[in-house]
Amino acid sequence: MDALKNDRFLRALLRQPVDATPVWMMRQAGRYLPEYRATRSKAGNFLNLCKTPELACEVTLQPLIRFDLDAAILFSDILTIPDAMGLGLHFAEGEGPHFHHPVKTAADVKKLAVPDIHATLQYVMDAVSLIRRELHGRVPLIGFSGSPWTLATYMVEGGGSKEFSKVKGMLYEDPNSMHQLLDVVARSVSAYLNAQIEAGAQAVMIFDTWGGALTTRDYQTFSLNYMQQIIAELKREQAGRPIPVVIFSKGGCQWLEMQAQIGADCLGLDWTMDIGLARSRVGNHVALQGNMDPTVLYASPQRIRDEVGFILKSYGAGSGHVFNLGHGIQQNVNPEHAKVFIDAVHELSGIYHK
Amino acid sequence: MDALKNDRFLRALLRQPVDATPVWMMRQAGRYLPEYRATRSKAGNFLNLCKTPELACEVTLQPLIRFDLDAAILFSDILTIPDAMGLGLHFAEGEGPHFHHPVKTAADVKKLAVPDIHATLQYVMDAVSLIRRELHGRVPLIGFSGSPWTLATYMVEGGGSKEFSKVKGMLYEDPNSMHQLLDVVARSVSAYLNAQIEAGAQAVMIFDTWGGALTTRDYQTFSLNYMQQIIAELKREQAGRPIPVVIFSKGGCQWLEMQAQIGADCLGLDWTMDIGLARSRVGNHVALQGNMDPTVLYASPQRIRDEVGFILKSYGAGSGHVFNLGHGIQQNVNPEHAKVFIDAVHELSGIYHK
Repeated sequence: MDALKNDRFLRALLRQPVDATPVWMMRQAGRYLPEYRATRSKAGNFLNLCKTPELACEVTLQPLIRFDLDAAILFSDILTIPDAMGLGLHFAEGEGPHFHHPVKTAADVKKLAVPDIHATLQYVMDAVSLIRRELHGRVPLIGFSGSPWTLATYMVEGGGSKEFSKVKGMLYEDPNSMHQLLDVVARSVSAYLNAQIEAGAQAVMIFDTWGGALTTRDYQTFSLNYMQQIIAELKREQAGRPIPVVIFSKGGCQWLEMQAQIGADCLGLDWTMDIGLARSRVGNHVALQGNMDPTVLYASPQRIRDEVGFILKSYGAGSGHVFNLGHGIQQNVNPEHAKVFIDAVHELSGIYHK
Repeated sequence: MDALKNDRFLRALLRQPVDATPVWMMRQAGRYLPEYRATRSKAGNFLNLCKTPELACEVTLQPLIRFDLDAAILFSDILTIPDAMGLGLHFAEGEGPHFHHPVKTAADVKKLAVPDIHATLQYVMDAVSLIRRELHGRVPLIGFSGSPWTLATYMVEGGGSKEFSKVKGMLYEDPNSMHQLLDVVARSVSAYLNAQIEAGAQAVMIFDTWGGALTTRDYQTFSLNYMQQIIAELKREQAGRPIPVVIFSKGGCQWLEMQAQIGADCLGLDWTMDIGLARSRVGNHVALQGNMDPTVLYASPQRIRDEVGFILKSYGAGSGHVFNLGHGIQQNVNPEHAKVFIDAVHELSGIYHK
């Protein structure tokens, strides 16, 4: 493996000094890029794109050709794990994900087992190894998974949901089954992330997209606890280097103090939170990742630069900030605006790292 | 008008002593009730139901026949105001709202004017007067409106949205036009709510459904400021009685301290917030309304009672709490479970009001 040439991202996660604030974008390999749409079209469908290491590698690297990003993130989907558990993931054209065999009953939960990661998800590890080779040490590679709670929402609802009536029905009415489900998913995620780390991921992120749909008590019991269980099981060092862990509960900024206590190195923030206030609440324990509103990328270059400036100033001096959007980049954004954003972070952040 | 027989709701909003915690449910007149679906079917479509005072009155009163609720809320839609401004509201069957003439440009904004409320929205005032008569003083009647920001999202997007790219595009790129838009909507909402108060509404609520989609700075500038402007313009007394005001920014619990400063009597809470923590943050300034997760109503009667007990205990002793769900009741809920919820609030709250 080539030596890492740009370690700003890893250093910021560990709150070590950096020369400029590192930046990457959630969904940076995505539909806003014409070259992504071309590869996606070549793959035939989204799941083929995820399951073909050469194509997953190709789209992972595309934004790094255009932009001066400080990290790459594995191109994959959070639902590969329930797919590996036998739920039968499919994507109808123009629609969200669906499972052929959702988890409807306590009996369905009992049938679930931790999948043989290498037998079922080797395509992900192959993509990770290939991306690492093709990166030639330019920037670190992030591996990722969905959180157990977030995966459970799709597994029980059978796809995306707005109201979560089925999965919360199970949570409220049969909490034991919900705990069994979350435990087997958490053990699967731990094995999956460790396999990604062994294959070459240099940091890992747990996406808790739907943690913010829970009450405070239930967030702690059914989401945060299982992320803590995973973090306790992760390999935190590989080839003599620490492997930092980021957790991101969208809509969960009211729980930052709790999130800071579970062993993660960094907390993701959505854009509703003032990052300076977040730092004052938890900044001595963890780094922070975020948090520009993705829709700012529809505005003019000057307005984008102003917003980057506001957020950098709000965070203030010193390391511990990984700049990002507060959610994935939207598909109708002009890629030139993404470039303005990324360059502005590097250009405007130097004064905070003297 | 008959004298008010049950003033628990109004007293709790003003933090005056009560014998039990009052309770009502957002969307209590709605699709989970078979009698609502029958009236809706008789009306032909949703907009006819809103625009026919006798039918709006009928569905407003339906949940009060079944349940021991402490308030009635006018049956209407938040989009009646932009409809009165000439945007052409329609609902395609099975779909959300759409406008024939969305606000796309700065020139479109300049054409907007405060509508003649009595010429365009008299059907709402007729419904309010009729409901007040038919209530015979049993419980107070709540009038309502959407917040300017929330109405602006629909007006600019042309309907519902998940990403708000158009309305935020205007906000970020042409903030002057956005302020003009919000100002004319705020003046319209003030006139609308004052007309509802004159027609008989005994409290008013401003629904800021999409305030939580904004950054902290933008929430203050583009949502909260305009709710403050409205509150300053409202008639706060009618027939010698105070008219309490509730504001509810869904997903906005990180901004409670700011919300408590704009002159509202009560803040709505979604279910993600611990109500005891919310009280410790703002309880001396305002009452709180909320905040059970609506999906708890899918659970067993015992589980519903337990959840009501948790929330009452979290709020603690004394007045200032109006029990509610943290969002509208969902359409697949069994009405018997709603009854369990409402009765549990009254039964379990007595000990906190000795």
